[in-house]
Amino acid sequence: MSVSAQAAAARLKTIWLEPSGDVSIIDQRQLPHRLVFETVATAGDMVEAIRHMHVRGAPLIGVSAAYGMYLAYREALRENRPAWPQEAAALLRATRPTAVNLAWGVDRQLREAGGASSPEERLERSLQTARAIEAEDVESCRLIGVHGLELVRRAWERRGAGDRQPVRVLTHCNAGWLACVSHGTATSPIYAAREAGIPIHVWVDETRPRNQGASLTAWELGQAGVPHTVIADNAGGHLMQHGLVDLVIVGADRVSRCGDVANKIGTYLKALAAHDNAVPFYVALPSSTVDWTLCDGVGEIPIEERDPEEVRFIRGLHEERPVSVLLTPQSSPAANYAFDVTPARLVTELITERGRCQATEEGILGLFPERKR
Amino acid sequence: MSVSAQAAAARLKTIWLEPSGDVSIIDQRQLPHRLVFETVATAGDMVEAIRHMHVRGAPLIGVSAAYGMYLAYREALRENRPAWPQEAAALLRATRPTAVNLAWGVDRQLREAGGASSPEERLERSLQTARAIEAEDVESCRLIGVHGLELVRRAWERRGAGDRQPVRVLTHCNAGWLACVSHGTATSPIYAAREAGIPIHVWVDETRPRNQGASLTAWELGQAGVPHTVIADNAGGHLMQHGLVDLVIVGADRVSRCGDVANKIGTYLKALAAHDNAVPFYVALPSSTVDWTLCDGVGEIPIEERDPEEVRFIRGLHEERPVSVLLTPQSSPAANYAFDVTPARLVTELITERGRCQATEEGILGLFPERKR
Repeated sequence: MSVSAQAAAARLKTIWLEPSGDVSIIDQRQLPHRLVFETVATAGDMVEAIRHMHVRGAPLIGVSAAYGMYLAYREALRENRPAWPQEAAALLRATRPTAVNLAWGVDRQLREAGGASSPEERLERSLQTARAIEAEDVESCRLIGVHGLELVRRAWERRGAGDRQPVRVLTHCNAGWLACVSHGTATSPIYAAREAGIPIHVWVDETRPRNQGASLTAWELGQAGVPHTVIADNAGGHLMQHGLVDLVIVGADRVSRCGDVANKIGTYLKALAAHDNAVPFYVALPSSTVDWTLCDGVGEIPIEERDPEEVRFIRGLHEERPVSVLLTPQSSPAANYAFDVTPARLVTELITERGRCQATEEGILGLFPERKR
Repeated sequence: MSVSAQAAAARLKTIWLEPSGDVSIIDQRQLPHRLVFETVATAGDMVEAIRHMHVRGAPLIGVSAAYGMYLAYREALRENRPAWPQEAAALLRATRPTAVNLAWGVDRQLREAGGASSPEERLERSLQTARAIEAEDVESCRLIGVHGLELVRRAWERRGAGDRQPVRVLTHCNAGWLACVSHGTATSPIYAAREAGIPIHVWVDETRPRNQGASLTAWELGQAGVPHTVIADNAGGHLMQHGLVDLVIVGADRVSRCGDVANKIGTYLKALAAHDNAVPFYVALPSSTVDWTLCDGVGEIPIEERDPEEVRFIRGLHEERPVSVLLTPQSSPAANYAFDVTPARLVTELITERGRCQATEEGILGLFPERKR
């Protein structure tokens, strides 16, 4: 990447409105090898961008879906298609099944913009709503950093005077600013700790099959100058067994009201290892990720199954050019479960924009009393 | 692969003596895309073949080291270098630190061949010893199949009459015939079940970073016509949570006399998931894998750290040609721990050539009473 692109990346957000009224995103499939921007001009384009993971990460999916609805209202006005926003809402909701933020962003648009009396007003309100959702996500992530910093500081202060090792955080997948608008969820306490002068080192799970850790988290930590080491997903248990991890922080795609956490496949295995080795295991999330309708996450959260070719093939850089290579025998089938659910009993605490809480219904409702029924 | 190569593979062993007295191996780095044989004519070549994982898997490393010592005695005689076998022994022992079979094969050669009175006799005895170790490995693996079959049969008989699902086994890395001479350890009960007419399906962990599951286990199961599905290493916990795994069988690189199991990195995470979901977790091993000198495997078994480039790059097939691709940002470092240790408390039973036992000192000594001190 060129120096100017690096400078741009350092100032970047993952999604923004162009003066033309189109939406721009980073095509995250091209990272870490290329920083590519993409213009999204229609709701249909946004459906494709979410489904094929140009944008990904539960918070960013929510914001992207909200902007997708804004684009639908723009098309409804320009092309006189009043039914299109409802249709686009169904298409957007169907792109990915696990993250609850997606339906949340779409439904909020239908409620706040759909109720207006004219197409012009619906467009105006949908833009305001998308911008509000975006701004709330930025603020939520910033506050997660404020509340999570305390946990990193605690680990740092636990070190004896002679121990100058940095605080070693393990994270899985990408719950960084690339998964949100900025700051990130799991990374926000890391960036906050760095600003507070606490030395920190991050173990980055590569996160097969799509390698969001090796490609996205490693890239954004590198851009920010945060020391990090990429490891195979298999390595975390060994590291924890040998005292090389002080705390685990991950993001979430959906959290049940009782504290079960759906997140990238493999998160559950790391939570088991953390529990077995008394390493604190934290989940960082904006409250838009909570599914207030569900308690039993293992039984009830739908788990997306993606194309098995994402397991059989992997994309990487060969002679300066991104190529896809086959990893398995031609005739061997594969399965590709995208998420798993970590039972609440394995979660030490949740970190939200309102503060931290136990991963229990009581703990969550303590922070969000307006949700009590 | 051509039809004749496939036919050859079906009859193949991983290592054999040529009429010339040289040793032949399969260069396993080329699988699953190409079946390549390699001639090993000197002990130095065998050192390279073990270090760079042309051959791998604890039992095969033991047999290969024994043949490496035979080649050293051949060079000692031909080139009049009486000190060479002792030097070669040190070089062979230093190739890989975790598998105990390696030192075991070398030491047995020094004891059985090294004691002879002439170079000719030492060569003759070293060949006999290598052949004996090879034959013992074949027989051990066959017997592991006999004893392990009972566990698969038990899972099959537990199915209700209306449930025609195959027995679903999950395995990690490659503990197949490619890791041994033939049969395999973890795969031996699978092949035995298949011969006994029990329908079976294998979940194959791809096993990053070197992907021995996706490349070796998937290939050998495919060659044998065993139904299997390749999964990311992250997926096993989710499968077990949802009742999709009846039993786990893995191999071992070193087992302490108290039952702690060093095996490919990530095994510990699968053992934790099996324990959390009451899925039986079995470890198959020939007794040459037991380290009678150690009890605390987590504290005492040395864990090999390999080149971080094995994490940063991966090899696969692109346009019919094997290429290596970069997965991480150019500047992101990686760490590459090759093994982890599963504490005995997570192991349901060990399967050895003498039968099954609890993963405890008492259980193991019950099968091997001659080891009581």
